[in-house]
Amino acid sequence: LIRRLRVDLAYDGTGYRGWQVQASARTVQGTLEGALARLTGGDSVRTRGAGRTDAGVHARGQVADALVDTRLDDGAIAKGLAALLPADVRPTAVGTVPDGFHARRSAVAKTYRYTLDRSPWGDPFLGRFALHHPYAMDLDAVRAALLLLPGTRDWTGFAAAACEVENRVRTLTDARLETGDGSTLTFVFRADGFLTYMVRNLVGTLLEVGRGAAAPDRVVEVLETRDRGIAGPTAPPKGLCLESVEYGPSAP
Amino acid sequence: LIRRLRVDLAYDGTGYRGWQVQASARTVQGTLEGALARLTGGDSVRTRGAGRTDAGVHARGQVADALVDTRLDDGAIAKGLAALLPADVRPTAVGTVPDGFHARRSAVAKTYRYTLDRSPWGDPFLGRFALHHPYAMDLDAVRAALLLLPGTRDWTGFAAAACEVENRVRTLTDARLETGDGSTLTFVFRADGFLTYMVRNLVGTLLEVGRGAAAPDRVVEVLETRDRGIAGPTAPPKGLCLESVEYGPSAP
Repeated sequence: LIRRLRVDLAYDGTGYRGWQVQASARTVQGTLEGALARLTGGDSVRTRGAGRTDAGVHARGQVADALVDTRLDDGAIAKGLAALLPADVRPTAVGTVPDGFHARRSAVAKTYRYTLDRSPWGDPFLGRFALHHPYAMDLDAVRAALLLLPGTRDWTGFAAAACEVENRVRTLTDARLETGDGSTLTFVFRADGFLTYMVRNLVGTLLEVGRGAAAPDRVVEVLETRDRGIAGPTAPPKGLCLESVEYGPSAP
Repeated sequence: LIRRLRVDLAYDGTGYRGWQVQASARTVQGTLEGALARLTGGDSVRTRGAGRTDAGVHARGQVADALVDTRLDDGAIAKGLAALLPADVRPTAVGTVPDGFHARRSAVAKTYRYTLDRSPWGDPFLGRFALHHPYAMDLDAVRAALLLLPGTRDWTGFAAAACEVENRVRTLTDARLETGDGSTLTFVFRADGFLTYMVRNLVGTLLEVGRGAAAPDRVVEVLETRDRGIAGPTAPPKGLCLESVEYGPSAP
């Protein structure tokens, strides 16, 4: 029985060279494809992921789809994946979807979170999942900069030089700061799509604003000039997490 | 200048053979003593910890004391320890205390937390700090058992066979279940002291009550008979965390 499968995943990306399959490196996609191939007895299974998370980036709500040929039902595949995948990559849902479903193209919005550990010495429980950033931060300035971001814009100034897509226009619908319990502070970004390094470059620039090295409207300058050179440094991957991917009510 | 130092620590115990110093194993106490010796230029520094956490057990509020001979002030020692200790052992406070202070003997209460991950497939973000326990649980039965625990009792039935202390009477002042955000469930125990494996054996027995293999009053039977054989299995260390140690207002 050939059908299209949707697999939702949560992973600790610390031990992976990112999502996308590579010939000689351990990646999340490669690990998932290996498990699916073993389960379905196929030579190889190709998956498509909603977000190409970078090396060291985590996910709570990554979505992948794959065409599989198997007699196993969804529940059996879910149990099989849970057993075959390592403890740092967990299937959180498995279901059959219409053949037109495309994990990335059918998505209408994605939400990324970037977590800072503001404790003075670094919380050992957050070591893998947050950037330790105990320095003074002007939160009013950061919030002022965040208010300037939402909208439909060309995000070239915040994209990696290596970003190869031609159309760099995306619509950012949410950019905010959440205060967590304990010592965490989390940036939340929601958009219809993101460019390579976009969230990490936004965070790097916002941290510059926070420490007073740039005014809040620096983010507008970066957007208008498309000059990556005046944006802040790319924030490290470990604080970043693909939180969720949204699909329209009529998505295949 | 010879003085007594109090160091508060948080650690991810995953990579350590527990708190207590051992000749040929990496322990938290050994790591702390090495860093203190390097900082103060002493041949060796002996520390005393409030709780002897087992291999793989974590701490948010471990307390240690040590006699040091150094011209460094408390702030310089705090910074030095933060720099010398590995990322999974963090000093959260450093201060000078009266010489009579004894991290373990001066303590009036300790609180341990044991966290369960109740998600169906296992949350990769909790992999190091919670026991994955997705099975059905009768929470009313567990709470009924918890209500039977507080009091001044002989806890032999919940202690490890290897527990060497003679007086096994301790006063448990709190035993409850907290519902966390997301999929966690946490047991909280507060007492004036704990025996070896006591919390892990309590949790193991409460999980037996939760799955219906024992009635809530099993915990009373274990206490009355002092028969370790009718208690549940020892729960794994990774869910356990020494949350805090309390000292009286006039400590030492």
